Amino acid sequence: MIKLFHFPICPFSRRVRLSLCEMNVAFSMINENIWDERREFLALNPAGTLPLIIDEDDNIIINTYAIIEYIEEKFKDDNTNLSYISGDIYQKAEIRRLIDWFDNKFHREVTKVIIRELIDKYYQKDELDNTSPNMELVRLAQENSSYHFDYISHLINSRRWIGGDALSQADFAAAAHISCLDYLGKVDWDRWVTLKNWYARIKSRPSFSPILEDNIAGFRPPAYYSNPDF
Amino acid sequence: MIKLFHFPICPFSRRVRLSLCEMNVAFSMINENIWDERREFLALNPAGTLPLIIDEDDNIIINTYAIIEYIEEKFKDDNTNLSYISGDIYQKAEIRRLIDWFDNKFHREVTKVIIRELIDKYYQKDELDNTSPNMELVRLAQENSSYHFDYISHLINSRRWIGGDALSQADFAAAAHISCLDYLGKVDWDRWVTLKNWYARIKSRPSFSPILEDNIAGFRPPAYYSNPDF
Repeated sequence: MIKLFHFPICPFSRRVRLSLCEMNVAFSMINENIWDERREFLALNPAGTLPLIIDEDDNIIINTYAIIEYIEEKFKDDNTNLSYISGDIYQKAEIRRLIDWFDNKFHREVTKVIIRELIDKYYQKDELDNTSPNMELVRLAQENSSYHFDYISHLINSRRWIGGDALSQADFAAAAHISCLDYLGKVDWDRWVTLKNWYARIKSRPSFSPILEDNIAGFRPPAYYSNPDF
Repeated sequence: MIKLFHFPICPFSRRVRLSLCEMNVAFSMINENIWDERREFLALNPAGTLPLIIDEDDNIIINTYAIIEYIEEKFKDDNTNLSYISGDIYQKAEIRRLIDWFDNKFHREVTKVIIRELIDKYYQKDELDNTSPNMELVRLAQENSSYHFDYISHLINSRRWIGGDALSQADFAAAAHISCLDYLGKVDWDRWVTLKNWYARIKSRPSFSPILEDNIAGFRPPAYYSNPDF
């Protein structure tokens, strides 16, 4: 069975979990605190980053880009249309453009800052001198999210899903980032109705249930986090 | 003919140029100064980033990840083995792991810092108050590069090319970043013999000639920059 090294509040790990579930692939999970710089983990991945999978033949596959393309190639099924980077070559390019939007632009401007201030610092409290989260940076990152939420709303208003008319890796990427923010209570849902309707559709998918059950010590999610009718 | 919007000292644009040349695809180039935030360019790509291509059917393809996968799918040739993400599914995952290493880890720790201090600030001199490069940050980024150059040397010592025994996108990614540093005189070649031998092999490829002829106003490359026998 595939083994996934992950961290619950890591948007990249979450996307791999979603993808494996949607592809109906069984896998087990190992919770890796990358801040511990565990020697055994660094031997597997010198970059020290998540996610990482070891497949049933003991092949190690490292980082989201490589893992997602591996999953797509290995488990896609042309007969049942099971693929989340699908469509013609331009449709696939559009999905990949949006994956990159979330994993780079959105991550840099929003998720990374909020996770660094709230989560990374908490897990590094024994090593760093100052681990109080800088709430001004958290506020600015939340402000940055408005522009992205506007853009997602604009996309969803003209398409069924973010990357086009089919559910795709672009939705998984967006949902992975937004669900991390939501766990930390950093999405003001009342302001974003279109986004909320899209997120409700994602939340009600069986692949999303395990993510809604995540719980990490020291951080209790808001009550609505796990509720598909939030 | 494909049109590529690029900037000469942009590692991501350089990788697309290399890939198109290696795939024998004719293309024209438009030099885009992203600091100008040109309205016509933002209409093409709301993220305002490079590279971007418009293909012969007027399809717009945005960002390296989407462009490279598009080029690989469209122009690969199984008969002649023309592909730079090739091999079995694990070999491809290894190439993609290393692409991500250079485009994220190496970029964040080295290229991005040096380009920001030297190039971005120069091009923003009319808009920013303080545009003197912070040479201490440049020095630290160069220091960071040692660890990466050691790692590349380690890889090349056990393989013909960085991603395996075949030339791949991992080599193009590494060469794209390193050639930007080299243009700015920030690689101490005397220290890195294995790396230098690999780079000489890349430099002597016809696909690399246009990159060796790059010249941007305000920045003259070192004399050895364009010499394959440096």
